[in-house]
Amino acid sequence: MKITVLSSIKEAQPDSLLNRTVIVIDILRATTNIITALQYGSACVIPFETIEQTKAIYTHRDLLCGERECRKIAGFDLGNSPLEYRTSIIRGKRILLTTTNGTRVIRQARLANHILIGAFINAQACAKEAIKLNQDISLLCAGTNDLFSWEDGLCAGCIVNEMVNYSEARPDINDFGLCMQSSFLQVKDLLPQALLQCANGKKLRGLGFEEDIAYCAQMNLTELVPIFDQGVILSQRSKNVCHS
Amino acid sequence: MKITVLSSIKEAQPDSLLNRTVIVIDILRATTNIITALQYGSACVIPFETIEQTKAIYTHRDLLCGERECRKIAGFDLGNSPLEYRTSIIRGKRILLTTTNGTRVIRQARLANHILIGAFINAQACAKEAIKLNQDISLLCAGTNDLFSWEDGLCAGCIVNEMVNYSEARPDINDFGLCMQSSFLQVKDLLPQALLQCANGKKLRGLGFEEDIAYCAQMNLTELVPIFDQGVILSQRSKNVCHS
Repeated sequence: MKITVLSSIKEAQPDSLLNRTVIVIDILRATTNIITALQYGSACVIPFETIEQTKAIYTHRDLLCGERECRKIAGFDLGNSPLEYRTSIIRGKRILLTTTNGTRVIRQARLANHILIGAFINAQACAKEAIKLNQDISLLCAGTNDLFSWEDGLCAGCIVNEMVNYSEARPDINDFGLCMQSSFLQVKDLLPQALLQCANGKKLRGLGFEEDIAYCAQMNLTELVPIFDQGVILSQRSKNVCHS
Repeated sequence: MKITVLSSIKEAQPDSLLNRTVIVIDILRATTNIITALQYGSACVIPFETIEQTKAIYTHRDLLCGERECRKIAGFDLGNSPLEYRTSIIRGKRILLTTTNGTRVIRQARLANHILIGAFINAQACAKEAIKLNQDISLLCAGTNDLFSWEDGLCAGCIVNEMVNYSEARPDINDFGLCMQSSFLQVKDLLPQALLQCANGKKLRGLGFEEDIAYCAQMNLTELVPIFDQGVILSQRSKNVCHS
């Protein structure tokens, strides 16, 4: 089994997606939020690239959610802070989500056979689910404006490390994946501090979102592994009750 | 002071080179060889992108050197193994060198203010020399055919770590640099083993070059920091006795 870590959306080329299971990672904060929203009872999450697309399908049973420049979009119900998603307001709702990087990258991965949503909070479960699907795996770090973000690389390294522990045969990991695994192992006992050193961590701290970072740095809070299929992110491969 | 690690030649854009000191790193094996050749007494090293360019300026006082697919080029005097450069054959000679990645990347860096040649064998000296030049620094990993190579990232992490130890003020390191530093710190006591896990390490071992890898993984063998200026690599900013 091949495991390939991709450093940013620029590397999401067809060869790295076709016939593969792809795990999309945007730690601060899109994929952490998507997992949290589904864990706390939202019906589904529908990712959009633009604000206009997000508004276009809005109905009364939906929540308009997302950020630009890390802040809630004017007129939207929720921003992009995981603390906002851990409340009863989201129960049963469709989450219509647009973020600067994460939702764009999820849609970019659509050529893949299976698309999973990964973060520290579901790292172990995500690794096991991907291995079970028994195809070559790409871990796609969202990055920031096409550039590598360390927090996404650390999470990719964490998931790769779980895969190595969980696999019976030794997987064939690309150089970037080996590098991310070693980086994760070096800082795994100091993850919140490492995330605060990242460019995005510094930016979020400056905007008062330090508590978000502490939440996003927690490992294995849930077994839930969201799946993106036909435009919609669900908590399992159940009957699709949401339509985009 | 800003320290930016660039993952491959694709990131060597003008913004990352202009008004900066750039350290070029191609551990297996071009930059390790260039340092070795100068340490063992060659007059200078002149890097070329193509075999034809290399042959075009050849005279009796030169050695034609380089590789394609890791092997010595037909009709050339030396290949790209550091063991070949540690002999009296190179004393006083101009080394005309063409390699698949390293020599191309060195020429690509020409917009920089200062271009230094880095490797594990001169890591500490290279870090100190770059800090002394007192400009923002880019560490340019050569990679392989435009893709990231872990061994180059590890050396960049090693040099960044030396810079952090040597700097009085805390430098501003980009996310990729922080990631490389942590990856290096994780494997620094097992560098030869890490290099053997890299794609290039596996390839070189398969071709019988395992001894090269052990040599390239040694840290701080020399204080020599080659400088690329006006088309020529010299051991110091001395009068240019070679002309390209």
